[in-house]
Amino acid sequence: MNAEIIAVGSELLLGQIANTNARFISEQLAFIGVNVYFHTVCGDNEGRLLDAIRHAESRADLLIFTGGLGPTKDDLTKETVAEVLGRKLVTDQEAMNSIAAYFRTTGRKMTDNNRKQALVIEGSRVLPNRYGMAPGMITEQDGRVYLLMPGVPSEMEPMFLDFIRYYQSRYGAAHIQSRVLRFFGIGESQLETDIIDLIESQSNPTIAPLAKEGEVTLRLTAKHEHKDKAAAMLDQMEGKIKKRVGRYLYGYGEETLPEVVFRLLQTKKKTVAFAESLTGGMASDWLTSFAGASTVLKGGIVCYTNEVKEQVLHVSGEVLQQEGAVSRRCAEEMARSVRKMCASDIGVGFTGVAGPDKSEGKDVGTVYIGLSDANETAAFLFHFTGQRQKIRIRSVKTGYDLVRRRLLRLPPIAQ
Amino acid sequence: MNAEIIAVGSELLLGQIANTNARFISEQLAFIGVNVYFHTVCGDNEGRLLDAIRHAESRADLLIFTGGLGPTKDDLTKETVAEVLGRKLVTDQEAMNSIAAYFRTTGRKMTDNNRKQALVIEGSRVLPNRYGMAPGMITEQDGRVYLLMPGVPSEMEPMFLDFIRYYQSRYGAAHIQSRVLRFFGIGESQLETDIIDLIESQSNPTIAPLAKEGEVTLRLTAKHEHKDKAAAMLDQMEGKIKKRVGRYLYGYGEETLPEVVFRLLQTKKKTVAFAESLTGGMASDWLTSFAGASTVLKGGIVCYTNEVKEQVLHVSGEVLQQEGAVSRRCAEEMARSVRKMCASDIGVGFTGVAGPDKSEGKDVGTVYIGLSDANETAAFLFHFTGQRQKIRIRSVKTGYDLVRRRLLRLPPIAQ
Repeated sequence: MNAEIIAVGSELLLGQIANTNARFISEQLAFIGVNVYFHTVCGDNEGRLLDAIRHAESRADLLIFTGGLGPTKDDLTKETVAEVLGRKLVTDQEAMNSIAAYFRTTGRKMTDNNRKQALVIEGSRVLPNRYGMAPGMITEQDGRVYLLMPGVPSEMEPMFLDFIRYYQSRYGAAHIQSRVLRFFGIGESQLETDIIDLIESQSNPTIAPLAKEGEVTLRLTAKHEHKDKAAAMLDQMEGKIKKRVGRYLYGYGEETLPEVVFRLLQTKKKTVAFAESLTGGMASDWLTSFAGASTVLKGGIVCYTNEVKEQVLHVSGEVLQQEGAVSRRCAEEMARSVRKMCASDIGVGFTGVAGPDKSEGKDVGTVYIGLSDANETAAFLFHFTGQRQKIRIRSVKTGYDLVRRRLLRLPPIAQ
Repeated sequence: MNAEIIAVGSELLLGQIANTNARFISEQLAFIGVNVYFHTVCGDNEGRLLDAIRHAESRADLLIFTGGLGPTKDDLTKETVAEVLGRKLVTDQEAMNSIAAYFRTTGRKMTDNNRKQALVIEGSRVLPNRYGMAPGMITEQDGRVYLLMPGVPSEMEPMFLDFIRYYQSRYGAAHIQSRVLRFFGIGESQLETDIIDLIESQSNPTIAPLAKEGEVTLRLTAKHEHKDKAAAMLDQMEGKIKKRVGRYLYGYGEETLPEVVFRLLQTKKKTVAFAESLTGGMASDWLTSFAGASTVLKGGIVCYTNEVKEQVLHVSGEVLQQEGAVSRRCAEEMARSVRKMCASDIGVGFTGVAGPDKSEGKDVGTVYIGLSDANETAAFLFHFTGQRQKIRIRSVKTGYDLVRRRLLRLPPIAQ
């Protein structure tokens, strides 16, 4: 099947929002092997929408609409599609019940135009909206499939995943499963080199690498008639990959490195404290963003000046004068001292040159990260590239990875 | 004129990126009063691009293309537009010189396909690319304007602003000027109420309010034949608005509250230190993101637990036991103590309930912010709504606003 995605909404044409729905839908369709040849955006205008639908019918057999299903007069997607198909709109009782229930729960008064949201194209299959009021619908006619969904991404995305499942059971027997492996501490080109034979001989499962913000992910996708077999194929490929680069694997799917470390600290009942110079509070901030942070984060000291490093954090003046703030011994003292002061199990110290200028004669990107627990204190040297903010983020992520490896008794990854 | 934006690139149809170029261009066009009726995305395929161009010609008189101007075989936008217009491609010597210069500077070898980037449609006006190699071009034929630009946003955006200036001088005599006023500490509905008569009687300048992340902006846009007059109209309207709500105005254009405070601290040669409980390092982190932060930020203490508040920050145990960590006196002691410990001019203390659960019997969103300098220490109570992260961000912004007002000797805005 060839698909065209038609987004309806004047807010897109005014540039108030980008058409991220088309991106999401296209990504999902690429994934199950459906070609997308066009995206079209048109406003809340019947004539122009008619033009878009008729032109799309000439070149696609799966027409996907987002937006224009709401209660106001501006919303005219289903009305216009019904007109093109020569069908009526009828009330869907289930949709009506859920709209009525919504108003009962919130104690608000249901106005007449809300009833309009329960209207669907006659003969269509209704897709319930779990996060809003307007239901979606699937209609087939003359060998073409028409899918109508709301424009709010949080309502559209789960509905589209429902459609994908329906589509697979209706049009394709194969089960498609995917798994995302997340790596830290290895560059994209190195990762590719290490598994180049697997990538070059890929067919099923496929392997798609993606690099972002100092991390690399691999998306494995397997296709098989039986669901269990598809999962087994993923397991097998994951096993092969882990044998090569498993030491860099930190998580799966959408989970982030801070999230993994947060949960690991909770599981192991360990607490942490941060001494932050170039990272300036970012490491503490990331952990604080999680509800329940107080169980794992004791606190921290932002020591942006040498004065604060010495007076508040008690780094020895001798180290600062002889070796400088950007030094192995300073990072070690920072980590040890913040751990003792905050009475945490683990202390982490970040010191380095974020730029744009050199500091203490050391190059931009020179970063020492200290790691201290009751048994051992050590610091690691890194040379990061890029702009100030990139270097700071990379430093924090590397600090989290050092904590993760210490908690799992894995050796640290030095540069 | 009616415009259609045609983005060319298979990466858009695969969902690898969203069509943010169309959003940017649409926003700019809305601004100068050009209607955009359609966005179209098509892949790197000549037949389908031809279809898109011909259909766009039937409904628009300004056709804007992004993407497909690069050196590879896939890039075929100018070839296809030239075919539709019945024109040839010719080498633009200036573009060729700048491409050759690029390769000389980087020491890389220029391959033949790079010469392709200097080809432009015969008879077109060339738009230089200041941030990349492929130039843009403007062609007119049969009353229609064709604008071709590269797809990389950092290259396209400045080029499109050049086009806007060209377009205004070619097609419209009116000068359009806009100014964005940024407010903090006042809600969108209150701001609208305070200037409702100005909004309701607006015509030229127009007034467009926008609320985002606890801030409100007003975009004033004036149109006049003479540039100076347009500016004077903006000055006059700004004056009227400031008389009503000037005490909430903190900046203009794209400048952010942290940026304004950073510059103000630099100008006044003052330093700051933060004691952060619920904000967990975010206030320090934001200031550290600016190059030169060391001139204004001394440091800070992240005191996520009462233990750290008492042992490291020296908040009195009596206050913590009798009034709790979320209290006026705790916020005051935090601000005063961090100022003294870090030897800064100003100290700010953040303590409150970020949620999701109540704490010390106090509701989620209850936040005290302490502010201390050599003359005065005081704390202010706020009740913020929303989720954990929203409450934390709102707290940090409010703390920055308190610092700004103290530096400017303005009274603080209490809730």
